[in-house]
Parts: sequence; C-alpha cells; structure tokens
Amino acid sequence: MVARGRFITFEGTEGVGKSTQLKQAAMTLEQLGVDVVVSREPGGTPMAEKIRELLLAPREEAVHETTELLLMFAARAQHLHTKIRPALERGQWVLCDRFTDATFAYQGGGRGVSRARIALLEDLVQGDFRPDHVILLDAPVQTGMARAKKRGELDRFEQEDLAFFQRIRDAYLERATAMPGQYHIVNAELPLEQVSASVSALLTALVQHAC
Amino acid sequence: MVARGRFITFEGTEGVGKSTQLKQAAMTLEQLGVDVVVSREPGGTPMAEKIRELLLAPREEAVHETTELLLMFAARAQHLHTKIRPALERGQWVLCDRFTDATFAYQGGGRGVSRARIALLEDLVQGDFRPDHVILLDAPVQTGMARAKKRGELDRFEQEDLAFFQRIRDAYLERATAMPGQYHIVNAELPLEQVSASVSALLTALVQHAC
Repeated sequence: MVARGRFITFEGTEGVGKSTQLKQAAMTLEQLGVDVVVSREPGGTPMAEKIRELLLAPREEAVHETTELLLMFAARAQHLHTKIRPALERGQWVLCDRFTDATFAYQGGGRGVSRARIALLEDLVQGDFRPDHVILLDAPVQTGMARAKKRGELDRFEQEDLAFFQRIRDAYLERATAMPGQYHIVNAELPLEQVSASVSALLTALVQHAC
Repeated sequence: MVARGRFITFEGTEGVGKSTQLKQAAMTLEQLGVDVVVSREPGGTPMAEKIRELLLAPREEAVHETTELLLMFAARAQHLHTKIRPALERGQWVLCDRFTDATFAYQGGGRGVSRARIALLEDLVQGDFRPDHVILLDAPVQTGMARAKKRGELDRFEQEDLAFFQRIRDAYLERATAMPGQYHIVNAELPLEQVSASVSALLTALVQHAC
C-alpha cells in the first residue's frame, strides 16, 4: 500500500509571488524524489475552471455574495473529489495555489461574509479534509499591489482597494496564529531567492519528516 | 405601501406540461389585473442562466453530486436576491418554473443526496423564504416521459431511466403530503384544457383571497 501524499496550499494576497514560489516548490520536491501535482483554486479541473471563468469575468450584473461563495465551493467540491483526493491516495503530493483559507481571507475578511457560513460550507464540501500544510507568503499589502499592477491586467478581485487587501492579510495572519501547527509564514518581502530558499528548506524538512 | 406579491412555483417531472401551464397561468393572472413576472430555475438572471448552462451541458468529466448541488443553489441565490425578492417587494407576483422543491425531488429523491444537506443549503440561501404556493403537476412517469421524448432533444437530466423519475415523482408527492397548505396537486394526466382550467380556478381563488 502506498503512503498517502501531502496536501500543501500556497496562500497570500495579490503580488506576493505565489505562482513563482509554487513552481520552484514543485521542482524542489521533484528533486527530492516526490511525485508532485500542481493545481490551483478556483479551478483545477475543466469543470472547475469553467466555474472560475464565471467567478472572474467582469459583468454588468452584480454578483450576490452568497452566489460567489457557493460557486467557490462548487468548484472546490469538483476539484477535491475528482483531482486532489485521488492524487493523494496514489501517493502524490498536491501543491495548490489557494484553497479554503483563501475563502476565509477574501470572502470572510475581505467582503465581510460570516465566517460561520463559510465554515458550514467547508464542512459540507470537505468533511474533515484540511490542508496538511499552508504556506502563507506574507508581505505588506502595498508591496504586493505594486507587483501585481506591474504584471498588467487586473481582474475583478484586483480592482478592489488597499483597505480590502489589508483586511485579507489580517485574516490570513489571524488564521496563522490560530493554527500554528498547520500554517508556515514566509516573509515574502525579501528578495525572490531568499523566499525560495525558505520555502525549499521547509519542504525538505517536510519530506524528511514524511519518510 | 404596496402589498407584497406572491411567489408561486410550478413543479413536476419531465413532460407534465409545466411550461405550457405556466404561460397560461401568467395570462390568467394578467386578466385578473395582477402584475406578473415569469421565471425559471436554474436560471432567471444572466448570471444564473450561465450557471444553468454549466449544469446542463453534457461533458466528459463526471460532475460530483456536491458540485451539482452547490451550482443549483448558487444560481438560486442569484435569482432570489436579484430578481424574485425585488419583484415581490414591488408587488409583482412571480411564477417560477421549478424552485427548491425540485432540488429535494431531483437531487434528493432522484440521486439520493441527503435531504439534510439540501435543507442546510436551503436555509443558508433562503433564510425562511419559501414559495407561497407550489403547483405540482402530477402524472404517471411513463406519460410524462413519452411527451418529453416527442419534444425532441434530451438533455443530461432527461437521459436517466424511468426508475429515477419514479423516485422524483414519489419525492414530490411525499412533500405535498407533508405540506398540504403550501402544495396544490393538479392531475396533469387529463387533457391540456382541463389541466389549464384547474390551474386557472386555483389562481383565481388565490387572487380573490389575496385582496
């Protein structure tokens, strides 16, 4: 019987370098002999990516916060049941760009959606499934926003103001404090190479610990 | 202050004539001087219709039952908050082709999704909002299926077998028995004109009662 893989999520506000770090992390794990699957939320399967398109497309019709929340969890249910869980059961490690912590941070912290409603959907969709490790790339909001703007086009989420992203950062840090065993805070304000070195050291320790 | 409108839903299995009866019902109400909005689920707003497309499109990827359930309720949240409630508050009567009773019947009765999970989402999306009246067009499953097939193309739901639709009919009848004040069962096996006459008589009584 193959040992179950680990589910590791990358979280943080805009422009903290999640995508870059996630790619580096996958290479690090592969060099350590781990079979890796890289994914993202919302999305990760063709159906879930369709839901992502619905969520991110700018539109005239105001999207109700409950609609947004349910679409997020619909995509998550599809992703979890058809991709993440089967991969973990095959012994693969799954690295995911955002997961439910992002819903607590963006919809909960950012938009003020009741945490109890989010927790209720988390239980409904995931049962007791949670990430094994959350890597929180943390940087001041101004730093991240400046980098995100340089990258070019802003989607619906990125058009929001700084105060919104400050609430999101606060919500992430609050969760990190509440779940110190699961959360790993990485200082993403440092130069790219130093951030990569921190993430790499962390993953190496996790692989050694898993053996 | 304008009196709140009534929310009336039309339910039943495939081929019982919901669409035809709904159009007739709208005309009846208009002749009685009622301002009517006709809508349908899943759908009813541009965003909710996009979600409908996702739900009904045939696809290679198997859609997990939780994904389907959450998409249904995402569309419903959007429909309820941006169309149904505002119309009722303006004093309009809303006639809707399917609503949450269909979720209990199709996903609950048909697919065996836990009723508790559906009820939990019903409360999350609707609070204590429920249809004022449910008009259940009831006919033996064989009768309805024969009519639905005549109409032409079958979508993903209509490709299922007779036993599936029998469970759906049973679930509707069970709910009608449990909520006799809200449910009105109309025998949809009778000729079209007789069914229309029953629905018309019912609506006339509701309008008189509402004045």
